[in-house]
Amino acid sequence: MKSRPFDPTRERMAILADGSFGVLESKLATSLLRYRPEHITCVIDRENAGRDASDVVGVGVGVPVVRGLDAAMRHGPTLLTLGIAPPGGGLPPEWRGVIAEALSRGLHVMSGLHQFLADDAEFAALTRASEARIWDVRRAPNDLPIGTQRALSVPARRVLTVGSDCRTGKMVTALQLDEGARRRRWTSAFCATGQIGMMISGSGIAVDAVVSDFIAGATEEIILERSRATEADWLFVEGQGALTHPAYSGVTLGLLHGSLPDAMVLCHQPTRTQMARQSAQIPPLGRVVEINEEAASWRRPAKVVGIALNTFDMSEDGANAVVRAAEDETSLPATDPVRFGVDPLLDGLERAFP
Amino acid sequence: MKSRPFDPTRERMAILADGSFGVLESKLATSLLRYRPEHITCVIDRENAGRDASDVVGVGVGVPVVRGLDAAMRHGPTLLTLGIAPPGGGLPPEWRGVIAEALSRGLHVMSGLHQFLADDAEFAALTRASEARIWDVRRAPNDLPIGTQRALSVPARRVLTVGSDCRTGKMVTALQLDEGARRRRWTSAFCATGQIGMMISGSGIAVDAVVSDFIAGATEEIILERSRATEADWLFVEGQGALTHPAYSGVTLGLLHGSLPDAMVLCHQPTRTQMARQSAQIPPLGRVVEINEEAASWRRPAKVVGIALNTFDMSEDGANAVVRAAEDETSLPATDPVRFGVDPLLDGLERAFP
Repeated sequence: MKSRPFDPTRERMAILADGSFGVLESKLATSLLRYRPEHITCVIDRENAGRDASDVVGVGVGVPVVRGLDAAMRHGPTLLTLGIAPPGGGLPPEWRGVIAEALSRGLHVMSGLHQFLADDAEFAALTRASEARIWDVRRAPNDLPIGTQRALSVPARRVLTVGSDCRTGKMVTALQLDEGARRRRWTSAFCATGQIGMMISGSGIAVDAVVSDFIAGATEEIILERSRATEADWLFVEGQGALTHPAYSGVTLGLLHGSLPDAMVLCHQPTRTQMARQSAQIPPLGRVVEINEEAASWRRPAKVVGIALNTFDMSEDGANAVVRAAEDETSLPATDPVRFGVDPLLDGLERAFP
Repeated sequence: MKSRPFDPTRERMAILADGSFGVLESKLATSLLRYRPEHITCVIDRENAGRDASDVVGVGVGVPVVRGLDAAMRHGPTLLTLGIAPPGGGLPPEWRGVIAEALSRGLHVMSGLHQFLADDAEFAALTRASEARIWDVRRAPNDLPIGTQRALSVPARRVLTVGSDCRTGKMVTALQLDEGARRRRWTSAFCATGQIGMMISGSGIAVDAVVSDFIAGATEEIILERSRATEADWLFVEGQGALTHPAYSGVTLGLLHGSLPDAMVLCHQPTRTQMARQSAQIPPLGRVVEINEEAASWRRPAKVVGIALNTFDMSEDGANAVVRAAEDETSLPATDPVRFGVDPLLDGLERAFP
């Protein structure tokens, strides 16, 4: 994508999570530690300085937590990543100095904030004076086309993760499927549609940040770029929202009709019956399957081939029970991709596309 | 809406359509002449200067076409409206001088271009030096909330126009329904979701121009504002796109789940079987009804209560025949709202909500 001034997967990253490093506070930092540990030199967080990242958030074994930028520099980072994605999207004021200092020392900066760092006069001046560059991942490319079903021109099989609500594991499931597919020696790539996935993969567009006329067009751009760049046989596309969501159903449908998937995997959190921060029920799992297949059929029929359950808040026995219940309810393979792996889903894909 | 610096329905308008005034070239100018003739002092178009607007575009009896701004000023305008909405969205270079001159003379300027006039240094300086103001109608309010089903809090019945494709008459049908309802002494208001409807009504938000996370939220804002401002019993909401459209289905679904209508009216052009500028078939009318009712049911069930056909390219006999055929196919009342009036649709609403 033209808007990306450097490839984060070729940099050595320090994650700035000062005062907000924790399992619940820093989904972004935690996801980077889980999926790109080899690129992360350290995490900056005064509160937990001296500890190992894995002692704080459960992932990132061997990644030190340090007190500040001076300490971080000893680990040789080339990129400072802002490790939060707050709902408001603004820049915590106490981070200004750290960012300016990092740019002065020649580090690139990667940010998922709504407020674009590159538009800040001070930061912009620093990038003009050095090799350091800023990637505001949420900035939409300004030359997006509208959707015209170009995903159909891609030779790869496209698998879209869909959900019963926001934050049910659509990004994680797509990443785990991509990893699992590679282990089976399938050629595979992950298509990021949100900021965290973009920072992990170094590609993609934040589809929820584009002007609404371009949702499908942006999705097509992501898919065409990944197909060209990787020549993969399988593309695992990160879905967003839910078709029944009061706020985000438009993004969800645009992404579905932009990606025109060959198959879908439905992501769900079994302990959730109500949508988060909405007075809206989540329909029964079988109905969510139907709804997604119905909406796909308006442009191109596609089946849900498996269920990905997020059981992080359940016991092992409880998790096993909900997996079996989901299989019984939908007659589809089910798993928790993190807890039990994605083999049942990949087996389902193999059966669907022999 | 906060972004509107003046109320266009209280101004005397000159429409700038120089070189592009015609039935096909200037949907915007033609729509303003059809729905707000009492506010329009003249149309600026060198090519047709000296004629009556109605001789050029079939509407606007008594509205003179004049050669330039000097001639226009003799008709006492207080507002210059840019009368085109080109696909590219840029400012025709030859219009710069006219706009600057109008602002210098104290005229407000209203524009639906993607390129915002208020961001132009020259124009901005002119507004600082006078009482003249610029309304870029496509600029999204920057404080939009996400959708939370707030339309349900509105006492009015909400009727959404939906379509089998773009440009099938969704705005015109909503405007005609609003007018027809007033003739029946219903209290009624039109909810604009696109730039032309906004210029006609002086309210609304261009939903296709908001960031995709806010489609439903923007729709809710429009509905709440119109309900508060008018206390109407009926709100006729302008739909956008089509649920099966390769580019715009996301906008369409977000608008449906943002407006949570009590009833829908389906707009269709009988001579069109293929979507405009897309390689995509339009499904049979009965199937389009089903699809819209299905998608509504994901949040709140609503029925299509009538069919609005756009028969501008058919003979009178042909138009009568397709109206009867649509009624036979769907068992719903059908009409061409412009050619035959909206009574069959209003009767349908009365039957549905006695």
